Amino acid sequence: MDLNSDLGEGFGVWRLGDDDALLTIVTSANVACGFHAGDPATMRRVSDLAAERGVRVGAQVSYRDLAGFGRRRIEVPPDELADELRYQIGALAAFGPVAYVKPHGALYNTAAVDAGHASAVVAAAVAAGGRPVLCQPGSVLARLAAERGLRVVGEGFVDRGYLPDGRLVPRSQSGALVTDVAAVAARAVRMAVDGVVEAVDGSVVPMPVESLCVHGDSPGAVDMARAVRAALVDAGVAVAAFTGVEPPPGHAN
Amino acid sequence: MDLNSDLGEGFGVWRLGDDDALLTIVTSANVACGFHAGDPATMRRVSDLAAERGVRVGAQVSYRDLAGFGRRRIEVPPDELADELRYQIGALAAFGPVAYVKPHGALYNTAAVDAGHASAVVAAAVAAGGRPVLCQPGSVLARLAAERGLRVVGEGFVDRGYLPDGRLVPRSQSGALVTDVAAVAARAVRMAVDGVVEAVDGSVVPMPVESLCVHGDSPGAVDMARAVRAALVDAGVAVAAFTGVEPPPGHAN
Amino acid sequence: MDLNSDLGEGFGVWRLGDDDALLTIVTSANVACGFHAGDPATMRRVSDLAAERGVRVGAQVSYRDLAGFGRRRIEVPPDELADELRYQIGALAAFGPVAYVKPHGALYNTAAVDAGHASAVVAAAVAAGGRPVLCQPGSVLARLAAERGLRVVGEGFVDRGYLPDGRLVPRSQSGALVTDVAAVAARAVRMAVDGVVEAVDGSVVPMPVESLCVHGDSPGAVDMARAVRAALVDAGVAVAAFTGVEPPPGHAN
Amino acid sequence: MDLNSDLGEGFGVWRLGDDDALLTIVTSANVACGFHAGDPATMRRVSDLAAERGVRVGAQVSYRDLAGFGRRRIEVPPDELADELRYQIGALAAFGPVAYVKPHGALYNTAAVDAGHASAVVAAAVAAGGRPVLCQPGSVLARLAAERGLRVVGEGFVDRGYLPDGRLVPRSQSGALVTDVAAVAARAVRMAVDGVVEAVDGSVVPMPVESLCVHGDSPGAVDMARAVRAALVDAGVAVAAFTGVEPPPGHAN
Repeated sequence: MDLNSDLGEGFGVWRLGDDDALLTIVTSANVACGFHAGDPATMRRVSDLAAERGVRVGAQVSYRDLAGFGRRRIEVPPDELADELRYQIGALAAFGPVAYVKPHGALYNTAAVDAGHASAVVAAAVAAGGRPVLCQPGSVLARLAAERGLRVVGEGFVDRGYLPDGRLVPRSQSGALVTDVAAVAARAVRMAVDGVVEAVDGSVVPMPVESLCVHGDSPGAVDMARAVRAALVDAGVAVAAFTGVEPPPGHAN
Repeated sequence: MDLNSDLGEGFGVWRLGDDDALLTIVTSANVACGFHAGDPATMRRVSDLAAERGVRVGAQVSYRDLAGFGRRRIEVPPDELADELRYQIGALAAFGPVAYVKPHGALYNTAAVDAGHASAVVAAAVAAGGRPVLCQPGSVLARLAAERGLRVVGEGFVDRGYLPDGRLVPRSQSGALVTDVAAVAARAVRMAVDGVVEAVDGSVVPMPVESLCVHGDSPGAVDMARAVRAALVDAGVAVAAFTGVEPPPGHAN
Repeated sequence: MDLNSDLGEGFGVWRLGDDDALLTIVTSANVACGFHAGDPATMRRVSDLAAERGVRVGAQVSYRDLAGFGRRRIEVPPDELADELRYQIGALAAFGPVAYVKPHGALYNTAAVDAGHASAVVAAAVAAGGRPVLCQPGSVLARLAAERGLRVVGEGFVDRGYLPDGRLVPRSQSGALVTDVAAVAARAVRMAVDGVVEAVDGSVVPMPVESLCVHGDSPGAVDMARAVRAALVDAGVAVAAFTGVEPPPGHAN
Repeated sequence: MDLNSDLGEGFGVWRLGDDDALLTIVTSANVACGFHAGDPATMRRVSDLAAERGVRVGAQVSYRDLAGFGRRRIEVPPDELADELRYQIGALAAFGPVAYVKPHGALYNTAAVDAGHASAVVAAAVAAGGRPVLCQPGSVLARLAAERGLRVVGEGFVDRGYLPDGRLVPRSQSGALVTDVAAVAARAVRMAVDGVVEAVDGSVVPMPVESLCVHGDSPGAVDMARAVRAALVDAGVAVAAFTGVEPPPGHAN
């Protein structure tokens, strides 16, 4: 099971999250590329530290929205969006190999349901050499990426509630967040071992994931990420980066 | 002799210069990378059109300054500047091969005299696989790039006046600009054939250049660029991209 | 009848539209405030020139979107949007009195149908001293502004097609634009004199407007704006700024 | 004696400093205006909270430099800079009265020695209704502001070392920072009571200040600010906002 987390999400003097601690826990680092967060110096530091620690780097691509941290849906035409995402992936590639692509924030949610913006993510991943896409199992993005022959890595959220149909409970509803560390760790193990998650109504939902997303934007979040990793190891789950990221031979970027 | 020009210098709805016309004239296109101009969609369009026409693309890197079009010197620490330049080169590389690096505007002028900012340009060109640097002959940047083993391509300005010591006449002084098309064309030929230029005081100055910079930001500028190319061809000068841009084997970006 | 137009829509070196020509034609200048266009120096120049020519200035407020020229809907929370619009109005007020507020681009269209974003425009106009709002007659924004006691100035588009229900023909459909200058001038006169416009299906639709919007982003557009003004004058329509913009006594901003 | 501090220096999701705590300590709040920090929602929140607590607000104006937090000198032409500063002051005025102007970061340092950028600050303060300027005693900005008839409020730094000529010890040199809380509090009292400060060489330097600057960007900084206020009160110094900020009658902005 892969563990991924969002890193490098500061900008200039502003810091967010404990990149250093997370790079001792996760196996895949989703590095911000400057559009919702992530100045070039931070991108270099995180890329270098990840390389040093053997953590793989993916491009955490976003709408152009520093003021809103990429959390606001922007109705950018899909063609322009694809170019903006290619730009971000290329920029990050200047600091080291980019193993995969993961959309951030509002783009993550939009690409899960909107074919236009999902296609833009796919187009950018294709243009970057056929990179794997990290996304919600069953999402429109997962389907379109698979149709284009991209490697699709299903992702689970250890601290988010799920609806019976496998979608996330919206943050505005009760049950959206799971805050008890033991419960979170248990959910992580169940997703890893059994490929299921218990939904808010108590039903058991298939959740075929290869990566689990953990957070690091508070001391409590880092402790929770550590607990998730420890629980997985205790349960005999091999914590390791997902496979199948090698770009097609001859692709340079 | 290579002919280079600044392209892709619009942003969003705003346009600047006639990219299409210039791509029928020049052999090297300095494409803006989003920091002083150049949105991703424009970068893609210009990169694609250049590839189609066999025109080589270089990264026209800049201070972060959309509001000032990169014409304002910014006292950014050299390490951060190097990261910002790497970011820009990588972003452009997402749309096609980047053959060389040329600093823009205030960075061009600063790197010609300031070792810190010149070193940042050199570091970025090295990190991008040892790319050639297009710059003023005799500048600090030319010297530092050569010391790092980079290919240095000396550049001449066909429509700018020169001082007896080989530097450009500052724009605030008379003689800074040459506006007569025939005079400009004749100066281009003389730089190409004899490797010299006549300075404002009438003295003849060595100007060992491999590339000449032309502009396209007005109809008159495009006509002047065409006249320069025609005069070079008439004088028997081979107009062709400069050589020696192949990156070291094994470098991916 | 008031004539309004979007002005000051360049940014830095980039120019858009002929501000100088338009300020000889219109009676109300919608000045961009830096979020979709409009750097501070341009805002000052346009404000000063408008004052000199006796043209009234309004704040053309927008989503934060330089890259998309404010043409992309952004799902910013209404409270934050209201603050962003207040910010813009205040910034423009630094260069002269702001007589009214007009939303730009995607915000114009969204506020016409979305109560949240319309409320943000209303809140900003209220906070700025109870400024009039220029908007589409019958829109959600018009209704909410009136409910808050703001002066609502209905606006007609001389070169846009209308649906039988009074809404604009979407730009993606045929009939969206009227390009014949004589036809445009005739429509302007009919809206001014009879308060109606002929819709794309030939039906005659009430269009109770106090201001007509003209453009200046091409030589043809400026000529059309001049033709509209001349036709209004020939038809005996008094071309003058709309009334009722005086802020409540004691309001400082 | 006035106590001032920089507030509202977050941007979007990013936070910096403890605005809430500082607003219980200081008498003047230098609020960031969006160019180096400070999104509109933050500007509103801080302005409202300051008003509620009876703390006066000033515009903390900056170069346009979110990526560098306004700490990088930018060679913007003085006229354009003046317009950028007017824009910022106007934007802040949308959220409440702006009592004074204080330049931030690199602009503070540049305006202390450079007549062009100092003049831009003065011009903006004049355009905003003749606002007082908070600055280093003896600086070029202090001199030019006084020549234009502006109220000049000299400012002392309680935790910075001074040179014998009254300038600050550069941050790159030893003695630049005073970190002992008791020493800082004692220096504050001495500046307030005796109008002098002990320089790094032990000499006693006149320091005629009406305001002392404290920081809040760490828990320790907030504690130090509290200690400074307590020490002043203990020494019988009246801690109160400086006087003389009333704008000329009839000025609206």
